[in-house]
Amino acid sequence: MARFLSPEAEVLAPYAPGEQPQDRQYLKLNTNESPFPPSPKVWQALTEAEVERLNLYPDPDCGPLLDAIAKRYDLSRENVIAGNGSDEILAFAFRAFCGRGIGVAYADVTYGFYKSQAALFGLNATVIPLRQDFTLAVEDYLDFPGTVVIANPNAPTGLALPRDAFRPLLEADPQRVVILDEAYVDFGAESCAPLIREYDNLLVVQTFSKSRSLAGGRVGFALGSPELIAGLNRVKYSFHPYNVNRLSLLAGAAAMGDGDYFRACTEAIQESRGWFTAELEKLGFTVLHSRTNFVFAKHEALPNGATYRELKARGILVRWFDAPRIRDYARITIGKREDMEVLADTLKELVSMKRESR
Amino acid sequence: MARFLSPEAEVLAPYAPGEQPQDRQYLKLNTNESPFPPSPKVWQALTEAEVERLNLYPDPDCGPLLDAIAKRYDLSRENVIAGNGSDEILAFAFRAFCGRGIGVAYADVTYGFYKSQAALFGLNATVIPLRQDFTLAVEDYLDFPGTVVIANPNAPTGLALPRDAFRPLLEADPQRVVILDEAYVDFGAESCAPLIREYDNLLVVQTFSKSRSLAGGRVGFALGSPELIAGLNRVKYSFHPYNVNRLSLLAGAAAMGDGDYFRACTEAIQESRGWFTAELEKLGFTVLHSRTNFVFAKHEALPNGATYRELKARGILVRWFDAPRIRDYARITIGKREDMEVLADTLKELVSMKRESR
Repeated sequence: MARFLSPEAEVLAPYAPGEQPQDRQYLKLNTNESPFPPSPKVWQALTEAEVERLNLYPDPDCGPLLDAIAKRYDLSRENVIAGNGSDEILAFAFRAFCGRGIGVAYADVTYGFYKSQAALFGLNATVIPLRQDFTLAVEDYLDFPGTVVIANPNAPTGLALPRDAFRPLLEADPQRVVILDEAYVDFGAESCAPLIREYDNLLVVQTFSKSRSLAGGRVGFALGSPELIAGLNRVKYSFHPYNVNRLSLLAGAAAMGDGDYFRACTEAIQESRGWFTAELEKLGFTVLHSRTNFVFAKHEALPNGATYRELKARGILVRWFDAPRIRDYARITIGKREDMEVLADTLKELVSMKRESR
Repeated sequence: MARFLSPEAEVLAPYAPGEQPQDRQYLKLNTNESPFPPSPKVWQALTEAEVERLNLYPDPDCGPLLDAIAKRYDLSRENVIAGNGSDEILAFAFRAFCGRGIGVAYADVTYGFYKSQAALFGLNATVIPLRQDFTLAVEDYLDFPGTVVIANPNAPTGLALPRDAFRPLLEADPQRVVILDEAYVDFGAESCAPLIREYDNLLVVQTFSKSRSLAGGRVGFALGSPELIAGLNRVKYSFHPYNVNRLSLLAGAAAMGDGDYFRACTEAIQESRGWFTAELEKLGFTVLHSRTNFVFAKHEALPNGATYRELKARGILVRWFDAPRIRDYARITIGKREDMEVLADTLKELVSMKRESR
């Protein structure tokens, strides 16, 4: 045992984030950031007067930000909680709704953080495999006697289920909390936010990091019944009441208020995704049907991380997970159209080089 | 049991932060914020170009910020971790260094968050009373077989121990982690940061919220041996790797780099504290010897929260803790000199009114 560490800290499973080279030499398509800057309204909101007020604590209740989010989803402030990124919200949810006698279930191929946070709180975790084609079957979760967390769309597969697919799960046990992590929902999938008025056991978690270009600002949020939100606040106020800083509160509210910019960015990414997917398929890649700002793809000539390694050598970063079932795939963020053109050209060279060398 | 909550969330003890009226009608002397804006270098660091890069994740390692902190304390990057406020750092420490068989000890009168976080992780907490005069006696902790957390200076008393007082505690059990919470150390107390090179079981926690005027930016940090810092990072990467946002990383580094401004602010507050303490004593208040940016005081004519209530009615917020031993005291933040003059005048009226009514 490492010196000083508690037994609980010994068994942690820290998450390895995607490479974040600080030198910016790479074309970075590995962490699913937006290629677009945040809404111009964000810069307008961060005035000198606001920076001069950084000596004051932020509003612990995040009032104006919650109002901006609630307005967007036609809900009330009591249906919303904001966090320092959605990872923090997920941690609050794991602590609030899981524990002794209440385990958590998630997919074998999904966001790696669920495993880390289950370990953080010493939870009993049940891993439920995706189907052969990487789709998630809600019926596989119906009998699980605990909290369920599902990423929809899922990562890194990019596959999404329609809203109504979750009704049987929400109805099977009204006492069981269902956490839907919708980090990527704004790129063509259906959000379950409208179901919150029907099911008080549904928590929808979203983030400003992808569709609202604020990964660097760290703002995430959850939507749910007043009971679920109160439970999350119970944890928040035991952990860190001032969890969202003043500038991120302002940035978040400004970004949420700029619907036109949001639509322009998310539409541009979906258009590039369509074009890039077609290019990949022309080159012989197998591409899962993405509803996100990334694609998950493999090529028989580039197995077991070869796409990742060969691209990195050429100055382009994509994400590779050295894990069962998905080892042959690469997860490629959809960047600006011109970046995707560079990548498509590079992959074309790579594939023809590999073919020639056979 | 509330619906949906886990047994662990049921027993939480959420912290109640000081009132934060968002209307700014009050003279706010209740949350120990700095009365001064952050260093002008903070505004200079938050450029439009940086705001436009908020689409990118922050550096999860917080590199440049850690370097700025390490430089200030003549340590290395591996001796430092940064957090979304020092509350987050404290939570990481509770999870890293406490758990099954490793309880935590803290004083009966101290920062209320230790209790909240001990409950968050289901820890066995031992409360060790301060002495009769509110001083903390390090010898009372020597035999405790677990992690010790001590605020030095302590809050809300404002009393501090000199650096060398902690040596016996650090030496009594080299395997035991000692967490010194130095949130208020820059207002005239002695930091134990220089002891880090001597004791690898010492963790010093500090914040940018008080002496560096960045409460709204949420930046805290800890200094310790590489082993302790690695333990904290193990928790951080299980909880939220991108825990400090891009703008706070920049703001923190800029604030830490402006030593002249830091000295000017902390000296001005100590000068106002000296003046205000003398005024209070002239009015018959008992004032503990503060080494912080607040004073803890009581008056026999204003018992049991009367100072707090009477001042609030007059548009001035101070903090009152309705708790054993300290119910007759008020905690008063040291603001700008002119604010303290307004407060002194108000208290003078209050005291003479109470005397006349007897």
